[in-house]
Amino acid sequence: VDPLEEPVPGLGTYEDFNTIDWVREKSKDRDRHREITNKSRESTVALLHRISDAFSGWLLMLLVGLMAGALAGGIDIAAHWMTDLKGGVCLVGFWFNHEHCCWTYNETFQERDRCPQWKSWAELITGTSEPIPATYGQRQGTPWTGHQSIKTILSGFIIRGYLGKWTLIIKTITLVLAVSSGLSLGKEGPLVHVACCCANILCHLFTKYRKNEAKRREVLSAAAAVGVSVAFGAPIGGVLFSLEEVSYYFPLKTLWRSFFAALVAAFTLRSINPFGNSRLVLFYVEFHAPWHLVELAPFILLGIFGGLWGALFIKANIAWCRIRKTTRLGHYPITEVLVVAALTALVSYPNSYTRMSGSELISELFNDCSLLDSSQLCGYEQVETGAGNSLADRPAGPELYTALWQLALALIFKMTITVITFGMKVPSGLFIPSMAVGAIAGRLLGVGMEQLAYYNHDSILFRGWCSAGADCITPGLYAMVGAAACLGGVTRMTVSLVVIMFELTGGLEYIVPLMAATMTSKWVADALGREGIYEAHIRLNGYPFLEAKEEIDHNSLAVDVMTPRRGDPALTVLTQEGMTVGEVESLIESTRFSGFPVVLSQESQRLVGFVLRRDLLISIDNARKRQDGIVSASQVVFTEHLPPLSPEAPPPLPLRGIMDLSPFTVTDHTPIDITVDIFRKLGLRQCLVTHNGKLLGIITKKDVLKHMAQIANRDPDSILFN
Amino acid sequence: VDPLEEPVPGLGTYEDFNTIDWVREKSKDRDRHREITNKSRESTVALLHRISDAFSGWLLMLLVGLMAGALAGGIDIAAHWMTDLKGGVCLVGFWFNHEHCCWTYNETFQERDRCPQWKSWAELITGTSEPIPATYGQRQGTPWTGHQSIKTILSGFIIRGYLGKWTLIIKTITLVLAVSSGLSLGKEGPLVHVACCCANILCHLFTKYRKNEAKRREVLSAAAAVGVSVAFGAPIGGVLFSLEEVSYYFPLKTLWRSFFAALVAAFTLRSINPFGNSRLVLFYVEFHAPWHLVELAPFILLGIFGGLWGALFIKANIAWCRIRKTTRLGHYPITEVLVVAALTALVSYPNSYTRMSGSELISELFNDCSLLDSSQLCGYEQVETGAGNSLADRPAGPELYTALWQLALALIFKMTITVITFGMKVPSGLFIPSMAVGAIAGRLLGVGMEQLAYYNHDSILFRGWCSAGADCITPGLYAMVGAAACLGGVTRMTVSLVVIMFELTGGLEYIVPLMAATMTSKWVADALGREGIYEAHIRLNGYPFLEAKEEIDHNSLAVDVMTPRRGDPALTVLTQEGMTVGEVESLIESTRFSGFPVVLSQESQRLVGFVLRRDLLISIDNARKRQDGIVSASQVVFTEHLPPLSPEAPPPLPLRGIMDLSPFTVTDHTPIDITVDIFRKLGLRQCLVTHNGKLLGIITKKDVLKHMAQIANRDPDSILFN
Repeated sequence: VDPLEEPVPGLGTYEDFNTIDWVREKSKDRDRHREITNKSRESTVALLHRISDAFSGWLLMLLVGLMAGALAGGIDIAAHWMTDLKGGVCLVGFWFNHEHCCWTYNETFQERDRCPQWKSWAELITGTSEPIPATYGQRQGTPWTGHQSIKTILSGFIIRGYLGKWTLIIKTITLVLAVSSGLSLGKEGPLVHVACCCANILCHLFTKYRKNEAKRREVLSAAAAVGVSVAFGAPIGGVLFSLEEVSYYFPLKTLWRSFFAALVAAFTLRSINPFGNSRLVLFYVEFHAPWHLVELAPFILLGIFGGLWGALFIKANIAWCRIRKTTRLGHYPITEVLVVAALTALVSYPNSYTRMSGSELISELFNDCSLLDSSQLCGYEQVETGAGNSLADRPAGPELYTALWQLALALIFKMTITVITFGMKVPSGLFIPSMAVGAIAGRLLGVGMEQLAYYNHDSILFRGWCSAGADCITPGLYAMVGAAACLGGVTRMTVSLVVIMFELTGGLEYIVPLMAATMTSKWVADALGREGIYEAHIRLNGYPFLEAKEEIDHNSLAVDVMTPRRGDPALTVLTQEGMTVGEVESLIESTRFSGFPVVLSQESQRLVGFVLRRDLLISIDNARKRQDGIVSASQVVFTEHLPPLSPEAPPPLPLRGIMDLSPFTVTDHTPIDITVDIFRKLGLRQCLVTHNGKLLGIITKKDVLKHMAQIANRDPDSILFN
Repeated sequence: VDPLEEPVPGLGTYEDFNTIDWVREKSKDRDRHREITNKSRESTVALLHRISDAFSGWLLMLLVGLMAGALAGGIDIAAHWMTDLKGGVCLVGFWFNHEHCCWTYNETFQERDRCPQWKSWAELITGTSEPIPATYGQRQGTPWTGHQSIKTILSGFIIRGYLGKWTLIIKTITLVLAVSSGLSLGKEGPLVHVACCCANILCHLFTKYRKNEAKRREVLSAAAAVGVSVAFGAPIGGVLFSLEEVSYYFPLKTLWRSFFAALVAAFTLRSINPFGNSRLVLFYVEFHAPWHLVELAPFILLGIFGGLWGALFIKANIAWCRIRKTTRLGHYPITEVLVVAALTALVSYPNSYTRMSGSELISELFNDCSLLDSSQLCGYEQVETGAGNSLADRPAGPELYTALWQLALALIFKMTITVITFGMKVPSGLFIPSMAVGAIAGRLLGVGMEQLAYYNHDSILFRGWCSAGADCITPGLYAMVGAAACLGGVTRMTVSLVVIMFELTGGLEYIVPLMAATMTSKWVADALGREGIYEAHIRLNGYPFLEAKEEIDHNSLAVDVMTPRRGDPALTVLTQEGMTVGEVESLIESTRFSGFPVVLSQESQRLVGFVLRRDLLISIDNARKRQDGIVSASQVVFTEHLPPLSPEAPPPLPLRGIMDLSPFTVTDHTPIDITVDIFRKLGLRQCLVTHNGKLLGIITKKDVLKHMAQIANRDPDSILFN
């Protein structure tokens, strides 16, 4: 009787905090697909099953897009309402936000903001006019936050419950609270998480995706694209973000499906129309003047600033998170959030640029001043330019100078508070704060350049392209370039960043400045520290993540990395016959390896296969319970045909079915860079090392990561999971 | 004396029409990089060398972008001039094209076309008014044309001279001739080829890229992106095209660099400004009306048409090319081109829509009719709509009906002539003809829909969104969707196609119709035939190309694919000691394998390493010439330490240096799908098969391809190269 005729429950699944075996998962899926294809020739029902199976991926993508788009729309609306609620309340109905409350109040556009239906708290209760910091935005018990965990999960790590329905509900609510609280954080990271939760929950509807960890990760990769797509209204940028930054395994099929899902989500969001302007994008920008080659110099300067800030931010933030992890501070997450929120509220209220939300600030900084603009940032002096360009560069007025001072203070405040805020136990994204820092710096530089150009038309720098009365410098463009540079410095995104910014502005025109700044920023930041913020957090958390971009410049061989090391006792192996159930059980108990190679015999050490600890345990347990005569003295047999046994011996336990007959092997002379390449590209969990056909040792993903940590002079024990 | 102290020339290089070993090439590059890094700590010169080495990739990309952009601009200008030359000549100077000739003639815009300086041939010589078919557009001796060869080269195949300077020069000239000849072909395919030639030539300037086949292919991938970028003014689309359609190995570093190069090229082209409108894009489109959900039905219909046409076109074109290959037709390429050109000229001249060039036609079809438009396609009857929308749908006039008839004829003509034209010995791209077919079909359907809407405002279909006097149907949009559908059906591009079209129009608005049509088109076409036109041509030519998208639904094992097959004599192997130079030489002569496994001994068959035939031949030749005492009786030794030899024996020849100590192995039980995955992802040339630690056989890329051909019921001997 083959115990595998009916599958033993649990066989082939993974334990929590373990890495999946991509090759096995993909192979399982192909088997399943082959079975369905073969069956489909037999009956119409099976054919229909095959067709529905083929389209289930698309259906799932559609559902993910719809659900994530709807959720994002809901979050936007709720956050908008709650943000306004900090300032006042609508007397007609408290569920209206400021804009909707005043919708019917038919005055001129400027006056609409001050309609009688909307009462600020100050008007209602004299005294309290400070915004209510959303100190209720925290949740205990989710130590795994943000992109870094998504990235690790996508690389094949299992964290149960991280993408479940409770996480979704709590994340959604807390995201609204966190965004509207006025803390220095953005929503794109949590939105990616929310989209991934949606995808994970929807995966349960389809057997194909529920049962296969690799297939599910394809859907999650697409969901990451969806998250960015709804956060910025940038579907193409979202897909490229998922490809470049988050995903580990990204086949072309996923690319196309991700794009579909991202588009569906973007259009769902647009039909919900949370911003009330029927625009898909968060910051719609339209500039009037082209840029000039000379301006590349300040753009590159912004790139350098962005790179410096990015590197500095990562170092400071990681240091702060390490303090939080190691000292007693980590025990009081709620107090921490309360303190930071109070601090943010206190310090940011006096300055109008820190008082407004991050996206409003960025929006205002990106804005190109037209003549009618009443914003403080457009406080130029009116100059009679005659018949000239009405948008010409003008000298700055006192209002603008005040604004510049406030912006400079806001810059310093944003730079410090973001370091403390990111990594707290609230859902927090980094895009908006990073962009805000860059946008402030860019705007300052832009106004400076503009004034320089205005007062020095005839200098060698500006002669020829920036004559008097011309609109040649656009401070808004500088803000945009600065935002891209800072975001690039922090996240080290490249193509996806430029494409996201391109989708925001819609003009190919400005790609070159963006690209110059992003490139400079990445180079500068890379020179000061190789890893982006997500990789740094992955490392801080000790996740088993094999970075695809890292190059290994070390000429060690597989034999230097494998277990056992030179001098250690030989590798624990099973023989394909001759061992008893009792011996195997004691071997399992005495070791902590998650798998054992099976060899021909202890003398020859010739490799036959590989068997996983979990599968072995489950099978033996199952056999002891269900199969007659399996006792400790029964022989465990991995061969194809049962060996001849003496008649009085107990029946053997055949376990060839759970053995992986095609384990990956490399020779002991394989350079470590090739080994790492194999691990990355094939998504392996372990690899056996042979020498002249004899089994010598085993390399696991953890071994590789530990070795890489060692090369980089880091603590190899910081890699926690397998 | 180690003969490898000074490298033997030719060692580690490849023969023509062979596949490279990606792992070995990448490993070589990492060694080189490591060496430079180590040296850089010693002296300033070495440090500078390291820095220049690190930036050489970017410099190369810049140069490729500049050169390809400049060439594309030149080609555009020359083709424009030659196209005009078919119609007439400028009396002021024959090198002016029609537009430049009439530039100074200051009449109204409509009249500018008919300036006195420009004389048509008809005016000059009475009688000849037929366009001169560019029968001079052919070149013999390049049987490798188009994307399919680039794709194969990028996958690691070596075709010497295919990307050389002569190819570049001849391609550039003939492309101008071919484009201006009026044949039904586009320029994007040859432009990709031209860009790859530029990249290949520029690679010679940098040691890093000259000497490493894998690194060079990274540059070529970027060059493919550059080619599409300049052909359509779509840098992002170009990069995605390279990623999705052309490239085999596309690391993230290449993505970023490709994007850079594509941008540089696009901006170089724009500053040359060949179209005279300072637009980056070939077909600038601006639509006035949004689309409605109901319109998705006709869009999907266009998708079905595109899919059907794509599948049909591929079948017909491949059948025609097979006829060309197998019959005597293939011996007269020049006559063929002459006949096709004459036929094209004769048939296309009477119809004004076939007379104009493909891109002009597409441009006109995409165009949205404004009130002032004098084009035949906008020959609507003027209706007094009162205060209504001036762009409202109007009833078609007689002029438009004539245009529709002409378009229908043009559609049939384009559909047939493209089948014959693509694959001729002229540089030919498929994008423009495919798009033209789709655009015609789309425009016809669009005008149909428009008239339907005009006459049935109140029917259930149009009620609610298309009232009388509104501009609700845009025939130009239908043309665009149709073009995307047909292009998608032929090439099976997905994301890149949508992004290219998006970059052409610049509005996210129209992505959904495009996506719906492209998706439908791909599904329909895939249902009728799995492979796109490029894959079909690759198969026709018998290239060793391992398609990344193809799924293998066959449960054979590695043992079924390997050489030797069951029953064949055992694998030819070398032993690590004991064989003489003479024995090895006779073994090499008697077999045709391109490499030999080295085993411990003939009895144990335990694998030690793998040695390539070419390396073995070169080393023995070199040793016989240079080393004293190497005769046929000398022992060939692959061990680390020389074995003890009798004093009278000739000195041994140690060859461990040329042996690959880490050959890839799989077990005989490895499923073939996993084996193919390993080949694809790691870019292997061959893989050894073991059973319980014993060497059993070898699988080469050719074996895999032959097996896949067998599964698909194709002739396995159609795979020609190794």
